[in-house]
Amino acid sequence: MSEEEKRQEITLTQFLDALSEGNATPGGGSVSALAGCLGSALVEMVANLTLGKKTFEAHAAELQKVREEAHSHREALADTIARDIDAYQEVMNAYLLPKTTEEEKRKRKEEIQKCLKRAADPPLFTAATSLKVMKLCQEAVEKGNPNAISDAAVGALLAEAALWGGMFNVLVNLSALEDKKYVQKMKNELKRLTLEGEKIKKEIMARVREKIN
Amino acid sequence: MSEEEKRQEITLTQFLDALSEGNATPGGGSVSALAGCLGSALVEMVANLTLGKKTFEAHAAELQKVREEAHSHREALADTIARDIDAYQEVMNAYLLPKTTEEEKRKRKEEIQKCLKRAADPPLFTAATSLKVMKLCQEAVEKGNPNAISDAAVGALLAEAALWGGMFNVLVNLSALEDKKYVQKMKNELKRLTLEGEKIKKEIMARVREKIN
Repeated sequence: MSEEEKRQEITLTQFLDALSEGNATPGGGSVSALAGCLGSALVEMVANLTLGKKTFEAHAAELQKVREEAHSHREALADTIARDIDAYQEVMNAYLLPKTTEEEKRKRKEEIQKCLKRAADPPLFTAATSLKVMKLCQEAVEKGNPNAISDAAVGALLAEAALWGGMFNVLVNLSALEDKKYVQKMKNELKRLTLEGEKIKKEIMARVREKIN
Repeated sequence: MSEEEKRQEITLTQFLDALSEGNATPGGGSVSALAGCLGSALVEMVANLTLGKKTFEAHAAELQKVREEAHSHREALADTIARDIDAYQEVMNAYLLPKTTEEEKRKRKEEIQKCLKRAADPPLFTAATSLKVMKLCQEAVEKGNPNAISDAAVGALLAEAALWGGMFNVLVNLSALEDKKYVQKMKNELKRLTLEGEKIKKEIMARVREKIN
């Protein structure tokens, strides 16, 4: 069994136990990616509870596309659970490099900066992909089987938590970075993602509130 | 191995696959309870990354209590993942009861109403307990190791999603209930929980924004 396969075989209880321990990983970065996976799986569920039913035939083609996209986001986010752990481990390893001579200090600092940049990628991916999942939740709320509307709503809540969770994890990495131009670029991107996320969240919740009461 | 133990042994991938399928369970109710578990485990993580470190001794007693409470909420919410599935299954079974004679119709209706009420309990428990978890996240943000602040923040996001997710799942059950007095009582309780949740969420996010930038 490969490392990847072993990771996928972790039970819910084992994941929760590992999370609760006093180690830096798995932590909020992995949980954010998992929240995105849960949101995606709920979109797939709603699509599956809709497709094949005569009453909802009108939206069948769109919901088939929604289901496919949600599935592909779920797979990518599932990989990100582990990618986040690996990237953070590299940051920790960089901090452990020797720092006796000036040359060592320089090399260590360079390595830390490189690893911090790399460690910002998984949570940025989580944030960006979870925004896409929120859009799919919106379609599931509008076009899915109304009996499953609470599932689509919970999907949106989880995807939103994943978007913001990803954002916080990127910000934590940025705070130690010296490349201010890169930091600003990332912050602009995060702002764009969260502003769009806030807008979609409001739209979804207003619609869900109309339908569930 | 008992049913309970088998359920706990489900892998992350199996849970996500089961969720994505076109069955009514597991669905948004179970995911909400799981989100509460993830939030609780992140509180435990932050407490564990704080306790035993000289720098943070001042808050040791409080964080020990926070860790214990988070652990007990996590266990209760983990049970709720399965309780939600069972309760919903009973609703489905009630709908399948015979409805040929008037007597059968009456009995079926009575049973459906009874099961719908019972099925509102797990998501109400999830909502109420996740509000408690949010309060623990707030303490973790204020008194925990600042290196783990993004983990406490993600915990709060997940617990908030669990609170709202629980609420939507209660509302869906209430919509088919005829006991209007009971429905109103539950709606009042949900309103109280979500209003308090909104307030705490704002406080937490303002504080996190101050600390991570």
